[in-house]
Amino acid sequence: MSHVSMNSHPAPRKVLIVGGGDGGVAREVLKHPEVEEVILCEIDEKVVEVCKKYFPSLTSSAFTNPKLKIIFADGLEFIRENTNKFDVIITDSSDNVGVATPLFGEEYYKLMKSALATGGVACSQGECFWLHSEFIAKMVTLCRDIFSVVDFAVCSMPTYPSGEQGFLLCSLDPLYEPRKLIRYCYQEAGT
Amino acid sequence: MSHVSMNSHPAPRKVLIVGGGDGGVAREVLKHPEVEEVILCEIDEKVVEVCKKYFPSLTSSAFTNPKLKIIFADGLEFIRENTNKFDVIITDSSDNVGVATPLFGEEYYKLMKSALATGGVACSQGECFWLHSEFIAKMVTLCRDIFSVVDFAVCSMPTYPSGEQGFLLCSLDPLYEPRKLIRYCYQEAGT
Repeated sequence: MSHVSMNSHPAPRKVLIVGGGDGGVAREVLKHPEVEEVILCEIDEKVVEVCKKYFPSLTSSAFTNPKLKIIFADGLEFIRENTNKFDVIITDSSDNVGVATPLFGEEYYKLMKSALATGGVACSQGECFWLHSEFIAKMVTLCRDIFSVVDFAVCSMPTYPSGEQGFLLCSLDPLYEPRKLIRYCYQEAGT
Repeated sequence: MSHVSMNSHPAPRKVLIVGGGDGGVAREVLKHPEVEEVILCEIDEKVVEVCKKYFPSLTSSAFTNPKLKIIFADGLEFIRENTNKFDVIITDSSDNVGVATPLFGEEYYKLMKSALATGGVACSQGECFWLHSEFIAKMVTLCRDIFSVVDFAVCSMPTYPSGEQGFLLCSLDPLYEPRKLIRYCYQEAGT
């Protein structure tokens, strides 16, 4: 593994994942050796069960990592009970319909702000800029009323509609620059 | 129009487009006021004819620009007859099958090198990194044998397979940094 800290931004130690029941985000987060504890809060136990069964060496390969704790609960209710606790909160939810809708609301973003530790960063499902640009603009405005720093990121995802997935990045640290690489973690396949 | 020169890299004056018969690349190139002359060399006259008819206010909106000259010819043969002439060559071809195959070959890249003026830049169709990574690696190796600077760029393109389009960027200027923005040209819709 190659791991390089690019600047002095403190390394995250406690990470909360809301959703992400397939385990893929947890697997990536756990590649960073500084991370001491990951809580995965998934509302649907069946997702974890099915992914454990069918993707044990893929997305679900980190489910046996002792740093990972899986909780089956409503993400919004879970963060309501946690204050000043997490260095990073990653919301890996489904789209803004049905059970995931509260995770795109003002209350959830305010609760994330409370649940983050000093200087913490939240990264949330940000829909797709080709398909939901008006909704994204509304979300960015909502986030800017709550967080010091807000930005929008994208990654290429060929199996998603339009081939792009967006992310809302919010930080309590006014000096956080989302467009600057903070640390780089690369792990060879199979290691 | 907002137009900002970001550093001292000379502005391109003469631009050759190989392919691009729909006119979209020409339209974008002609938004840059420094550009004095654009030659569009398209092998298939029918493409230009059909696009003029059906997309007169879209991709083909620059076909009446007096700076644009359209030539119907084989791109490879056209650049063979031109030496040290163009500041930029943009190859907007179809995929690496049939009539477009020569535009992905060593001879074409060597001819582009000769056709470029001092410090010139070539930007070519680079296929898709999700679908053609081995082919792209081969093309990058080929380009590095010919040009001082070679890099690979992508843009998001939801109507293309996998949602991404790649570009091979090659320059004769060893100081050219493809990852640094040189100039920014933004034109409001309808202006």
